[in-house]
Amino acid sequence: MVLQAPVLPGPVVPPNFLESLMSYVAPLKDMLFVLNELAGLEQVSTLPGCEDATPETVEAVLQENAKFCSEVVAPLNRSGDQEPSYWHDGEVTTSKGFKEAFKAFAEAGWQGVQHPVEFGGQGLPKLVATPCIEMLNAANLSFALCPLLSDGAIEALLTAGSDEQKRIYLENLVSGKWTGTMNLTEPQAGSDLALVRTRAVPQGDGTYKISGTKIFITYGEHDMAENIVHLVLARTPSAPEGVKGISLFIVPKFMVNADGTPGARNDVHCVSLEHKLGIKASPTAVLQFGDHGGAVGTLVGEENRGLEYMFIMMNAARFAVGLQGISVAERAYQKALAYAKDRVQSRDLAGSAGAVTIIHQPDVRRMLMSMRSQTEAARALAYVTAAAHDAAHHHADDATRKANQAFYEFMVPVVKGWSTEISIDVASTGVQIHGGMGFIEETGAAQFYRDARILTIYEGTTAIQANDLVGRKTARDGGAVAKAIIAQVRATQAELANSGAPDLVAIGKQLASGADALEQVVAYVVGNLKSDIKGVFAGSVPYLKLAGIVLGGWQLGRAALVATQKLQSAAGDSNFYQAKIGTARFFAEHILSQADAYRISIVEGSSGVMALTEDQF
Amino acid sequence: MVLQAPVLPGPVVPPNFLESLMSYVAPLKDMLFVLNELAGLEQVSTLPGCEDATPETVEAVLQENAKFCSEVVAPLNRSGDQEPSYWHDGEVTTSKGFKEAFKAFAEAGWQGVQHPVEFGGQGLPKLVATPCIEMLNAANLSFALCPLLSDGAIEALLTAGSDEQKRIYLENLVSGKWTGTMNLTEPQAGSDLALVRTRAVPQGDGTYKISGTKIFITYGEHDMAENIVHLVLARTPSAPEGVKGISLFIVPKFMVNADGTPGARNDVHCVSLEHKLGIKASPTAVLQFGDHGGAVGTLVGEENRGLEYMFIMMNAARFAVGLQGISVAERAYQKALAYAKDRVQSRDLAGSAGAVTIIHQPDVRRMLMSMRSQTEAARALAYVTAAAHDAAHHHADDATRKANQAFYEFMVPVVKGWSTEISIDVASTGVQIHGGMGFIEETGAAQFYRDARILTIYEGTTAIQANDLVGRKTARDGGAVAKAIIAQVRATQAELANSGAPDLVAIGKQLASGADALEQVVAYVVGNLKSDIKGVFAGSVPYLKLAGIVLGGWQLGRAALVATQKLQSAAGDSNFYQAKIGTARFFAEHILSQADAYRISIVEGSSGVMALTEDQF
Repeated sequence: MVLQAPVLPGPVVPPNFLESLMSYVAPLKDMLFVLNELAGLEQVSTLPGCEDATPETVEAVLQENAKFCSEVVAPLNRSGDQEPSYWHDGEVTTSKGFKEAFKAFAEAGWQGVQHPVEFGGQGLPKLVATPCIEMLNAANLSFALCPLLSDGAIEALLTAGSDEQKRIYLENLVSGKWTGTMNLTEPQAGSDLALVRTRAVPQGDGTYKISGTKIFITYGEHDMAENIVHLVLARTPSAPEGVKGISLFIVPKFMVNADGTPGARNDVHCVSLEHKLGIKASPTAVLQFGDHGGAVGTLVGEENRGLEYMFIMMNAARFAVGLQGISVAERAYQKALAYAKDRVQSRDLAGSAGAVTIIHQPDVRRMLMSMRSQTEAARALAYVTAAAHDAAHHHADDATRKANQAFYEFMVPVVKGWSTEISIDVASTGVQIHGGMGFIEETGAAQFYRDARILTIYEGTTAIQANDLVGRKTARDGGAVAKAIIAQVRATQAELANSGAPDLVAIGKQLASGADALEQVVAYVVGNLKSDIKGVFAGSVPYLKLAGIVLGGWQLGRAALVATQKLQSAAGDSNFYQAKIGTARFFAEHILSQADAYRISIVEGSSGVMALTEDQF
Repeated sequence: MVLQAPVLPGPVVPPNFLESLMSYVAPLKDMLFVLNELAGLEQVSTLPGCEDATPETVEAVLQENAKFCSEVVAPLNRSGDQEPSYWHDGEVTTSKGFKEAFKAFAEAGWQGVQHPVEFGGQGLPKLVATPCIEMLNAANLSFALCPLLSDGAIEALLTAGSDEQKRIYLENLVSGKWTGTMNLTEPQAGSDLALVRTRAVPQGDGTYKISGTKIFITYGEHDMAENIVHLVLARTPSAPEGVKGISLFIVPKFMVNADGTPGARNDVHCVSLEHKLGIKASPTAVLQFGDHGGAVGTLVGEENRGLEYMFIMMNAARFAVGLQGISVAERAYQKALAYAKDRVQSRDLAGSAGAVTIIHQPDVRRMLMSMRSQTEAARALAYVTAAAHDAAHHHADDATRKANQAFYEFMVPVVKGWSTEISIDVASTGVQIHGGMGFIEETGAAQFYRDARILTIYEGTTAIQANDLVGRKTARDGGAVAKAIIAQVRATQAELANSGAPDLVAIGKQLASGADALEQVVAYVVGNLKSDIKGVFAGSVPYLKLAGIVLGGWQLGRAALVATQKLQSAAGDSNFYQAKIGTARFFAEHILSQADAYRISIVEGSSGVMALTEDQF
């Protein structure tokens, strides 16, 4: 186990320097630009049931949320990393301040933003919840995981829970009085849920006795809520093997009394917490079910349909984990930018009398632009995806709903996989900008590098997302949805090319190459999946990343078009709009420009992936 | 400061699983292939002064070194991370076992491998020391840093030390009885040494009183040696401003008696250690010089030429840090490979009754090949560079010496910058292959991800290496050396293209694109540096990475040609040679294939880098 060196005197970093860099300022202006100009908030607010989400209301909600996240939650980020949650005798004490902050979060109603008014929520569209989730995660990834998992549990119960289960659990989850968890993983069953062994034996009274071990259960035990609602995958005695024999159960930490209050302790116990690389404040529990007579659970929906219900939770959670990537990237960027504007080192290359701040150095500029442009592209893509979710659920027209649902489903693995992959790169670049100081834990940049590293793993690794993108989202419909999206990219590209503005034309040039590459790859995936399944899946992650950069570049291209119009009509802040164009151009020529390399990897490179036999490794 | 959670019970990972994955096995077969087939060990052994380094002797040396590194040093890697060096009252206690292991290292003569016989070394070529350094670092990065810094101090004293200084210090450094440090950085002077403030006042007796603060001093204080020889950059009272006023001083921890034994304590004191993201076992010291009456130092060489001497140390150290990148990449690869062969999860896509080990999954295969191929390419490039160093120092022919020196100097920033950049990516991929287990510290994969993160920062960040590559190594001679190297790449490419073997032709195709891209970039750098200095430096790091993948791909192309010949002549292990061809092909189509994207970034992308004004950030 881990022993630490004794507390050391005098860190190199002066304390006031730290404070000045430690704050999170929500990028409201950027968020509102994306909401209003790219994701169509005004259109969303005309959808039946979304009428409350007028641009004015939404701006007020986001301002309030930003204030809460910056003032209450962000200050706990560093201290939580330094003093993680800890286990003692089956109980988990969360990091200092977490309990109080979660109480304030719940009381302010933030858990309920996107949930039905019927159960005490605010009933706002997903497009509005999305920036709120981004802000909470940027403020504190470890803290935000708890409500993120409650959101998933709420979604699953809304869809598959009985009226009784909804009555007992939903209001308390939506209010944040209770919290939820997802219990999938077992030591032998990670990405492969077919291997789940946890047992559920019917007791004849409508309940089941659950027994088994679940690992990696985020907020599986904690002291922030009255009760914890575990959603647990398990097998009944008669269940078939594999994923078709998995059912979903509710196993509350405390059984619920007739009056709705928490009653007797259920037989689910946290036997240890993991010692992790990052997100240390969030307790990651090993849960033991049924070691002392049996944990009591109730079935959600029908037997053997558990995976289907779990996917409801998981799809919501996957999208939210994509947002986590954007959040940590934004936070790392803000920190690196503040350092780059503060740290004086070396002369300006163009000539200066003395040393200047390092933001003058071209390579620091390149790194900042790389961080910024990837973060903005991923944000735009995620918000546009959230808007599609709202249209898919609320639009009056059936065909429009279906088209939006297809777009949303195509995008979920891209948002999850690509936003999280870039977050590691962005956080690492943030460390690099800090130089040696970035490697010192006191500075805080290293925490983002550690925290981000889980995001490409949990809620389905990038490979799992890529499998979904290749199989269910691309090949199954013969690439129809993918081609429809590429057609939209082509339309933006034509607008850019025809604009006559050099920056826009340059962006359009790379977008054209990107669309070409994506089109060829989609054709390759659709055309070869049956004949060469391993060859196609060898390119699955490169395909996901290619989709990310082309579709992210598409959104920044749209942003550049809007910004150009705004500048032409002299509307608003010209610095802001010029930066949008510059950022889009950087992304096009430094990130989107990698599209053809991905095409080569996918279309020409599969034999290299599978060239070695297992023995040859 | 950092408080840890209490020790937790029962980690998820079973202990025997850990042990089985924890070992380091030196890749001797791969190393010998590179030494003999790519780096020309036999030719090196014909150089005057290198006659002892016959292939047979070298193999025996490497086997002995491998045994020592695996058995003595590697087992301390994880425990050192868990129980870092710690500071108490000015003294530093290194991690358990380090002191004894360093004694054994010194007594076996490993510190002296590449140093002159005259001072007790073994006088072996750099090409032979190179795999030894790789192995020591792969076994334990934190441990290996200590001898790495001694190597630098020895190089500096050999070049610039007086006979007296050589007599007093060299034998003890070469034997490992004493160790060396580099004291460059100060709080305000990191990459920018012009800002160094440490003062050196002549005392009239040939000595100087040194006063000031140095930070980030690796092994600046420890308990592994009798004495520590600090090489310190400081300014004399009459020194001009900037880098032209910096002198180099020896400041030993203990003054040296007339009989050569350590005497009175000098006034240099460690006031704290840093709490770092990685390489935790290596003490990173804040050193205070002259707080109690003045630290006594002696001048190395001439006043105001300190930077020049420091560059001798630094160039040796930069090359060695490049090797550290290869080392940590190799270690991370070995660990991920062992896990991939052990972990059972999901069916084989091509159809299997039950779950199989994850090495059957195409994306795991892709990740392993990415780790392996980048590591092998970087190793080949580094070893070939070491051979050029030997030829530059020992060849009888003046023109050959000069050509090799030019090659070596061009390569140092590429080896340092590129090998370390890929090491972060490789270590991160290693975590990914482990899935959720990779994020748990007990597994050990995360340590490599943390350790690797310093490598692109210390001994000059990647940007500093890239500046060197652009300025001194490319533009200064009008691209002559770069073009000569590209001509060699073209020759290999032609051989590949003319081979008629599909794998070799495929590699040649990508190598041709890579050479085209590199050629255009060199022309751009040479042609535009004066007219658009910021634009060219905006592409400096992409240029370094481009050089890395093209030259690394070149070496793997050479390896594939050799392997094809061996297979045709049925010489040796066909699995081994087939793997060399497969690995080269993977690298060509998945890594080298990015060359044109870098060209676009560099040649077309500079305006995007500099598009935003400082206010617009």
